[in-house]
Amino acid sequence: MKLPHLSQRADWAAGQPISDLMHRALAAPQLISLAAGFVDPATLPVSATRAALTEILGDELDAQAALQYGTTHGFARLREQIREIHLASDGGASTQPPIDLHQVMLTAGSNQLLHIVSETLLDAGDIVLCASPTYFVYLGTLKNMGARAVGVETDDDGIVPEALEQTLEQLQQQGMLPRVKMIYVISYFDNPRGLSTSAARRAQIVELARNYSTAGKIYVLADDAYRELRYDVADVPSLRTHDDAAGHVIQSGTFSKCFSPGVRVGWGILPQELVTPVHDQKGNLDFGSPNFAQHLIERVIAQGRLQPHIELLRASYRTKLQAMLDAAREHLGPLGCQWVEPAGGLYVWLTLPEGLDAGMQGPLFDLALNEGMLYVPGQFFYPDEGAPAKRNTIRLSFGVQSPGRIAEGILKLAAAIRAAVA
Amino acid sequence: MKLPHLSQRADWAAGQPISDLMHRALAAPQLISLAAGFVDPATLPVSATRAALTEILGDELDAQAALQYGTTHGFARLREQIREIHLASDGGASTQPPIDLHQVMLTAGSNQLLHIVSETLLDAGDIVLCASPTYFVYLGTLKNMGARAVGVETDDDGIVPEALEQTLEQLQQQGMLPRVKMIYVISYFDNPRGLSTSAARRAQIVELARNYSTAGKIYVLADDAYRELRYDVADVPSLRTHDDAAGHVIQSGTFSKCFSPGVRVGWGILPQELVTPVHDQKGNLDFGSPNFAQHLIERVIAQGRLQPHIELLRASYRTKLQAMLDAAREHLGPLGCQWVEPAGGLYVWLTLPEGLDAGMQGPLFDLALNEGMLYVPGQFFYPDEGAPAKRNTIRLSFGVQSPGRIAEGILKLAAAIRAAVA
Repeated sequence: MKLPHLSQRADWAAGQPISDLMHRALAAPQLISLAAGFVDPATLPVSATRAALTEILGDELDAQAALQYGTTHGFARLREQIREIHLASDGGASTQPPIDLHQVMLTAGSNQLLHIVSETLLDAGDIVLCASPTYFVYLGTLKNMGARAVGVETDDDGIVPEALEQTLEQLQQQGMLPRVKMIYVISYFDNPRGLSTSAARRAQIVELARNYSTAGKIYVLADDAYRELRYDVADVPSLRTHDDAAGHVIQSGTFSKCFSPGVRVGWGILPQELVTPVHDQKGNLDFGSPNFAQHLIERVIAQGRLQPHIELLRASYRTKLQAMLDAAREHLGPLGCQWVEPAGGLYVWLTLPEGLDAGMQGPLFDLALNEGMLYVPGQFFYPDEGAPAKRNTIRLSFGVQSPGRIAEGILKLAAAIRAAVA
Repeated sequence: MKLPHLSQRADWAAGQPISDLMHRALAAPQLISLAAGFVDPATLPVSATRAALTEILGDELDAQAALQYGTTHGFARLREQIREIHLASDGGASTQPPIDLHQVMLTAGSNQLLHIVSETLLDAGDIVLCASPTYFVYLGTLKNMGARAVGVETDDDGIVPEALEQTLEQLQQQGMLPRVKMIYVISYFDNPRGLSTSAARRAQIVELARNYSTAGKIYVLADDAYRELRYDVADVPSLRTHDDAAGHVIQSGTFSKCFSPGVRVGWGILPQELVTPVHDQKGNLDFGSPNFAQHLIERVIAQGRLQPHIELLRASYRTKLQAMLDAAREHLGPLGCQWVEPAGGLYVWLTLPEGLDAGMQGPLFDLALNEGMLYVPGQFFYPDEGAPAKRNTIRLSFGVQSPGRIAEGILKLAAAIRAAVA
């Protein structure tokens, strides 16, 4: 009997370091985890969910519709609501390219949208340009299909346009421009740094995608998972408002962060020419995302309970973010740690003193565990190619813990850093 | 500006004929559709869902757990229940290989399990042996990844073992045995024919997989989506009961048919060595299937409401199956149509008089539409290679319509057949 011969993709997917980290966290539940990007359990929308489901399940026909199969495209009424909310957030329909309803597609979380769009556009060896650092699960999705993630220098205002242009130039000179299919941008309060792309840069990134679409179309994949989680700043129009009729921007969003990750409904607004191929891909893979969850979200919106819930989240996370920043100023600043204060999202990105390796093989990780806290090493967020990884970085999440526990976690981290540099 | 260059997979996925069929059905809602494999709306579990969710949402901690992220593996308590139910259905733990809890994985419908297992095992050009005819969505999944589906002659007792052996022999002689990764079997009341694999054949299929695992391991992918929908026959132990410690059988099942397709929770029981690679693949693609749905199903089972619901389904579908068979005997038999009477599932597979093309380009399809009924042409269910497609076949589903509408639909089909052969 022979061992199984797995696929090329299985090889590409093997050995995820983040799984090891998860296991450590699960094995020691008394740890203060500032690692997982989970949302605050206390603010999960129990009453809004109850109200929506009471109404749906109280009506025999509505209940049956929710419990039956849906379509590959997703529940039309929810797609209409998403279109309306998105257009309104971006300043009204007159300020942007129109959205036909069939351009809006529903997925099981925005991860599925990212995955299916990537399957539609990428062959092994194709290139996606990313911020450096960026969302590690999407790096895994790309690795899984043998695609190349190339990191582009990123500062406090997002991907640096000059660096993006330089990368595109270099790839053009290498004859690799036809392999560049997308620029992946988390434009609001990004994972892992909590920082947004400035309005000026949004326009520049879309323009660069357009200008370099000489050998084949380059899309901008705008992942707006954290857009609603803004605490003390005004909203900024999405990347899509800088698009033109040609349609370079693939817009994605989710109700996981602003409502419930357990329900897991995400969405995409696709350029016209991608609707059919993405739909074909989705039809072959899932024949429709979970319909019940889509009906639940639709009803929450129809009952007017989404926006109040978002306000509640903002109040809660604003306090937590402040707790983290206050503790960091008190305990980490004096140790030479640096960070940029986010105005939204769930994360603070910490740069440790030069030379201190925060990775799982470095000294700090185990010291922090011994102190009783867990973080995610920054190294996981860097693409394999392009702008180099900074190993003296960590991502801290303030989503799950209470303000008191956040402060305690930072105190433990400070103790670990002191021990590591001693 | 250039047109997008899509991936190889996008090309493989393009032009799904079934989409066209769906559009026709949606465009004419007054049609009697005996096409879609949907379940009966009237028997969807509204009260069981309400009871489970009232309990979950009535407890703050339970509600939060359901609304939070889950894990890539899935909700442990539901995985325990599935293990227990599966072992009991197969005659108790002593009759079969043991199941470690980590071998049980939860997915968004069993389609996701089929997809992720296939990604883990198949490269483009790899071969999956299938019944001919078989489930068309899985044929799409395989096509999507450039894998080859090779059809094996199938009779009323399932895949014919002699034909399976002959196919394996031929592939061995062609040097292609290392590319054969799986044998896909819908062993209970299959889609599209409603027929089951006999107990004797189950053992033979697993043995053939074992015996031909000389160049690499050949798995049996057992898709048991319809196992619970049996009407007047005893249950048969699953393919997994014929497995040995080496683990050739990948068992999959779903709550879509026996509870609710809108909730969309499926599961797999994996051989030990596949747990990590399938988990890695899943982690990169979805980072966990919808958790809320898993908590709902867990509570339905814990409240003892699954089995009574299945009994209710059986009573309803038994009547509908009889209505279809009675109408067929009266109206289709005299026209020279033939069928084998299923004892479960949702489908009746009809063989029309020789030479009558039931495909979308043939005469019958439009005639049936004009009469006011819709069916699925049998040609969609045949793999591209291997045992040849029979174009004079159609799949009829008795899931959705009432007994009266089923009879009416058959009458319309009979009129269309008469017109087609006139």
